[in-house]
Parts: sequence; C-alpha cells; structure tokens
Amino acid sequence: MADVHEKAVTRRRALAYGRIIVGEAAFAAVRDGKLPKGDALPMAELAGILGAKATPTLIPLCHPISLSRASVHTRLDECAHAIDVYALAEISERTGVEMEALTGATVALLTLWDLVKPVNPALLIDAVRLLYKSGGKHGEWRHPD
Amino acid sequence: MADVHEKAVTRRRALAYGRIIVGEAAFAAVRDGKLPKGDALPMAELAGILGAKATPTLIPLCHPISLSRASVHTRLDECAHAIDVYALAEISERTGVEMEALTGATVALLTLWDLVKPVNPALLIDAVRLLYKSGGKHGEWRHPD
Amino acid sequence: MADVHEKAVTRRRALAYGRIIVGEAAFAAVRDGKLPKGDALPMAELAGILGAKATPTLIPLCHPISLSRASVHTRLDECAHAIDVYALAEISERTGVEMEALTGATVALLTLWDLVKPVNPALLIDAVRLLYKSGGKHGEWRHPD
Amino acid sequence: MADVHEKAVTRRRALAYGRIIVGEAAFAAVRDGKLPKGDALPMAELAGILGAKATPTLIPLCHPISLSRASVHTRLDECAHAIDVYALAEISERTGVEMEALTGATVALLTLWDLVKPVNPALLIDAVRLLYKSGGKHGEWRHPD
Amino acid sequence: MADVHEKAVTRRRALAYGRIIVGEAAFAAVRDGKLPKGDALPMAELAGILGAKATPTLIPLCHPISLSRASVHTRLDECAHAIDVYALAEISERTGVEMEALTGATVALLTLWDLVKPVNPALLIDAVRLLYKSGGKHGEWRHPD
Amino acid sequence: MADVHEKAVTRRRALAYGRIIVGEAAFAAVRDGKLPKGDALPMAELAGILGAKATPTLIPLCHPISLSRASVHTRLDECAHAIDVYALAEISERTGVEMEALTGATVALLTLWDLVKPVNPALLIDAVRLLYKSGGKHGEWRHPD
Repeated sequence: MADVHEKAVTRRRALAYGRIIVGEAAFAAVRDGKLPKGDALPMAELAGILGAKATPTLIPLCHPISLSRASVHTRLDECAHAIDVYALAEISERTGVEMEALTGATVALLTLWDLVKPVNPALLIDAVRLLYKSGGKHGEWRHPD
Repeated sequence: MADVHEKAVTRRRALAYGRIIVGEAAFAAVRDGKLPKGDALPMAELAGILGAKATPTLIPLCHPISLSRASVHTRLDECAHAIDVYALAEISERTGVEMEALTGATVALLTLWDLVKPVNPALLIDAVRLLYKSGGKHGEWRHPD
Repeated sequence: MADVHEKAVTRRRALAYGRIIVGEAAFAAVRDGKLPKGDALPMAELAGILGAKATPTLIPLCHPISLSRASVHTRLDECAHAIDVYALAEISERTGVEMEALTGATVALLTLWDLVKPVNPALLIDAVRLLYKSGGKHGEWRHPD
Repeated sequence: MADVHEKAVTRRRALAYGRIIVGEAAFAAVRDGKLPKGDALPMAELAGILGAKATPTLIPLCHPISLSRASVHTRLDECAHAIDVYALAEISERTGVEMEALTGATVALLTLWDLVKPVNPALLIDAVRLLYKSGGKHGEWRHPD
Repeated sequence: MADVHEKAVTRRRALAYGRIIVGEAAFAAVRDGKLPKGDALPMAELAGILGAKATPTLIPLCHPISLSRASVHTRLDECAHAIDVYALAEISERTGVEMEALTGATVALLTLWDLVKPVNPALLIDAVRLLYKSGGKHGEWRHPD
Repeated sequence: MADVHEKAVTRRRALAYGRIIVGEAAFAAVRDGKLPKGDALPMAELAGILGAKATPTLIPLCHPISLSRASVHTRLDECAHAIDVYALAEISERTGVEMEALTGATVALLTLWDLVKPVNPALLIDAVRLLYKSGGKHGEWRHPD
C-alpha cells in the first residue's frame, strides 16, 4: 500500500459504469418485477453501496478511506436487454476513489446476476470502465470514448 | 434468501471467466513485472480467492457456504493486451456456487485494475461470464458460445 | 463458544419480531415513499438478511453456521405509527438459529432508524422478542404471550 | 449514501440506551456470575464496542467513519429484572454518530440475549432510543422524555 | 485453496499456545486489574474467540469452516512476567483446524498487547506453536518438545 | 475505546517484527518455491497488508483509522531456517499505529504457517516485537535491544 502522506487532501470524485446483458425473458422479468427473489434494481443499488464501502477489504492495496458519498443507479436498456449500472464515489482525502466506484458498480452487477440467474444462466457483464474522475494531482479526467 | 433445505447435497462446481483489457504499455508492465506496486498476477489471484470467500457478505441473497475449493488463474493475452481470469469454485452443498466463482473472477479483475491504473486509467473489464457449472438439479451446464 | 459436537443435526427454525415506533409524520413518509434516502422497507429487509448472515462476527459466542434460509418482512402498523419487523432463519445444524433471527430483525430495525431519523430523531425500538423456535433437544417453542 | 462533503467537521457525540428484561432466575444468574457461558456484562460491553465499529458494514447508508471513541456500559436493574445498556460514540467528522451508538447498544443487548437464553428463552429487548446527541447543524438534542 | 472434497469428514481438534512477556510493572497491572483500559484477560479471551472465527478472512488459503467449538484461556506466569494463552478449536469437517487455533491464540496475544502497551511498549510475543492436533489422515499429533 | 479527541493529529509510524522458524526442509521449500500451495513470500506479504487493515475489527479497543501506508516485507534467514517479517504502518491521526504494524506482521507469519505446515507441523513464531514508533506525545521510540 503506497505512502500517500505527501499527497494533498482534495475533493475526489469517480464515476464508474458497467452493464449486464440478460436476454429478452430475464429483461422482461426485471422490468416487470417478476423475478422469483424480488425487485432486482433497488437490491442491486443497495448492494453496490455496501460493496463500495467494502473496497479496502477486497482490493489488497487500496487504502481504507472514509467515503463522503457513494451512490449507485441502474437503468434499463430495452434495446440491448441490458441493465446499466452507474456508481459514483466521493471523498476528501489523499487518495483516489476510482476503485470504490468500480467495486460499487461491480457488486451491483453481480447482485443482478444472482437475482436473474434462475431465469437465464448465460448472462454477460461487460463494458465495465471508469467514465470520469476528478481531484488529485491530475485533476479532471474523462474516458476517451 | 431462498430456502434450500429441500435441495440435495451434491458436489457443485462452477467456472467463471472475465478479462481486463489494459493496453499495450500496461500489458508490457504486467508481463515484465514492472508495475510500481509489484507483481500483479499472483496478487490478483490471491485477492480473487479471498473475494470468492467474501461472496455471501457482498451479494445479499447468497447463502453462506463452506467452499471446499476456490482457485483463480490468470493468463496473459498478448494479442488483445488483456489479462484473462479464470475462477473455479467447488462445494458439497445444497446451493450452487456460481456467484462464488464470478465474485472471485471479478475481485481478481478489480485488483488488476488497481495495480495497472497508474499506467493507464482507461481500462476495460468485459466478457465476464459463467463458462461451466455442474451439480444440483440441472446437472452439467456449459455456456452456449 | 460451547462445544456442539455431540448435538444432533436437526432442522432448526427461529422467528424473531421487533418494531420501531416512528411517530405520525415519519410514518406517513415511510408509507408514502417520501423519505429523503429512498424506499425504506425493501432496504431494511435486505439489510436484515445481511445482518442475519453477519451474526457470528457480531455475537462473540455464536457459532459460525451455514444458514439455509433467512428472510425479513416488514409491515406497517398505522395505529401505532410503527413498523413491525419479522425475521425468519432456518438451518440444518447442531446449533440453534435464534440469534440469527434476532440479529436480522434488529439490523432491519436499525436500518429503518437510519432512514427515518432525518424526519424524527425521537424513535423507539421495542418489543424485540423470539416468537417461535423449533428443532434441537427442546423441540418446538412458542413465546408464552 | 448522502453527500456530506458540504457539512462542517464538528465534534459529534451520541448516547444510546436500551434494555433487556431477563426475568428473575436469569437476572440472578447474571448478577451472580453463574451463567454457563461466563461473565455476561464485560462480554456484552466488549461486543458492543466492536458492534459500534461495524456500523457502516451493517447499516447500508451509514458513512464509514473513524470513531474517536466508543464505550458501552451495563447496569443491573434489580426491580425490573433487566440489564440497562448505555452506549456512547464520539467523532470529529461531517456526519453524525447516532447509528454507531445505537448499533453498539443493540449488539451488546443481543450478546446478553445469547448468554442468557440457556436460562430463559422468553427475553425482551425494549426501550431502545437515543438519549442525547450533540454536534452538527442542529447542535445539542435530548430525548423529550 | 486446495480441494478438500475427497478428504473424510472427521472430528478435528487443535490446541495452540503462545505467550506475551510484559515485564514486572505491566504484569502487576494485569494481575491486579489496574490497566487503564480495563480487565485484560477476559477481553483477550473473547477477542481470541472472534479471531478464531475470522481465520478464513485473514489467511488467504484457509477454507471457510463452521467451527463447532472455539475457546481461549489465559494464565498468569508470575516468574516470567508473562501471560500464557491457550486456544482450542474443534470441527467436524474435511479440513484441519490448526490455523483457527493459532489465529485465536495470536489475536488474544495482540489484544493483550494493546491493553498493556500504555504501561510498557517493549513487549514480546514468543513461543507461538501448535501443541496438539487430532483428526484427519494423520491422526493424533503432539508437538515433539 | 479511549477518547482520542484531545490528541494532536501527527504523522505516526510503527515498525513491527516477528519471525517463524520452519526447520531445514521447509526452509528449502520456501526458498526454492516448492511449497504445494505456491510461492509463500508474496502471499504472506499481501495477507499481512490486508491484516493490518483489519486491525480494528480484530483488536476490540483499537480505533478505526485510515492507514496512509502499510507494507510488509519478508526475508529469508538461512542460518536459523527462519523467515523474518517486517511490517510498517503509517498514519496521520490522533492515535498510534503500533497495533496495525503488529497485526500485519502476525497475519503474515500465520499465512506462512498455513503454507508451510504440510511440510512441517512443528513450526514456531517468536520474537514478535515493536522495533520503532514515532509521532504522538512521546515522539520517537526504539526498542531497547
């Protein structure tokens, strides 16, 4: 775990994205609240927030930090039969917050997987990436795409 | 959390896959052990095993289970400038082990992200899927692709 | 932590109850989904399930067990301006499952507290008790009231 | 998890209370140190402190914070055959500390339940409330009763 | 994490030992219950039991298991100004329980360190070893000394 | 957990040491990377870093803190057939960081134990001590030996 003592305390923010492609039948079940284990989207959002907080216990070299904000939002993509997940993390610290956003997004996606798999086991998580980060030495950064 | 009491105790096995595309420079740094935080592949494998064990604390409706095996393997894909991650989980229980394999793979991928991001922040995790599972009511299953 | 090796593996089940009295204004906010942090009841239920799974890390002398089921249900009590929480835990093991049910109920109640406190800080958790348990040496037990 | 970035860092303190009514025989066993699993009061106090520290892993929308103090005290109430639990939490942060105090009190009460239940399963936790909090935008607050 | 599926489920037991040498003044403070943070021995024993349960989250390749018993005992050694710690772990499983006993002993020793360090920072943990184990392929084993 | 609110925020650093004596055959297996479970030293170092971060969940009265650095290094001692472990922890906080360094060292030692025990069960952890600490009221401190 790198020494971050010399880094400045600045407000840092990171936004991560990922999606899970679930297929037509499972998509309809999610959209219509018909999954056997209950309403998937709020469960995934809540699990994502808890996941963001668990980041330093999961990622070995991540610093333990006091997140000032974590939020996870889901969006149905009817065309792709996919659920988009956006995870935002914010902190005032010496170290960045990308991994918290990414872990939040990923745990939300895995939670959707768990809820959807009785309908379709051939799921796919893809396109997990960092969309934006700010704060720290490098200032604002946006994904080039 | 569903009642699994009526299900049979059988040997269950699941194999999950995912990859992280890191770009040319970061790929060389991983391959040549030149990352600032150390040798990425064994760290990711170990973090993935711990991640598989953490599954029931992360995924709300997953049953707490006593994994009889978890292992994570990484493979360099020179053409795609990617690192492939395979995670295997096994258990003798009443409930499946897919989520453990998927969580193991995902935590390994996120650990690679954390180690590689000083070199390239525009990383991409994709193609996360279940390749194989066996045991339980449905027997053996392979991903259709 | 007592030695449970000699005890029989039987199906054990426990049902715990508790309630939080929130007052008129906060009750209306919960009922109408108007709380600033979102829809309280499904969040509390999910947190309660995760709480039930966390029992052996919280209660020092509880055995680590593999719950075969945990579920938490909430019910609005309009007269008392209260939210009732019921938590059910099941297992096939050598040791009872009361503490898991009680911890699940209590974590759900605390989660409701956290969500409701911006509206009313003078909340009250009361009537936390075990309603029913079965399995083990003593067989079925119901709360005398 | 709400954004607390704009809030001031102030010293915040919260005191929570709750009690467990154990009945005459169990009360005597606690008071006289005759419980089969050992001396209940110090165990409950220690578990309560660990519980206060676990708050952000249990309550989904609680911020992870660096408690500057947590303490839990128990008191025997001979008349009611009850054990009173007081939990104090303090912090210098942008967010309140009520949930830490309440979780500390509740985990201590559940630990007492676990230790006392071999003597009497018909226990009751009640009167869990916040007695006092200070710091933050609203300053000092006392429970109206 | 090795595959233990082929191993037999047998009763397994392990006893670990370790000690902390605290010096004359700190020894007297422990013995007489005069430490600033409270009565050290029961706190250390309880922390050791929780530590034994945390083993699979701490030791990467340890299997998650359902301990059927964990207990930790301390003993004052007046001559050496030391506190001896004994930790016993038992299980009926396919995998051994040494690491649980050793982790329990070690966490108890570290807890004593934390409680004693205001009196003397030059503490020493030594002689941590496995005294005995039974069960599994190799049957009974005693430390050769 | 003591109130640390009045203490100054200073940079604090602690270095802990410990060793595990493994015997000739196991030493050769570690040195030559021939252990059945894989390359022991990097695994132990990584586990030690995660262990340092877990300190406040293991040691009851330790404050939860945001480590600014944790690192663990191992060294082979051919003469003693031992592996030396050094763990460094740093923080800018109101409370010391000795327990984080000691817990990091100890978890690394236990991880080595777990990896080496198939070769030799009669292992020994000894000489665990604090070598150095700085920061806080007492300034710099070195172990008297």
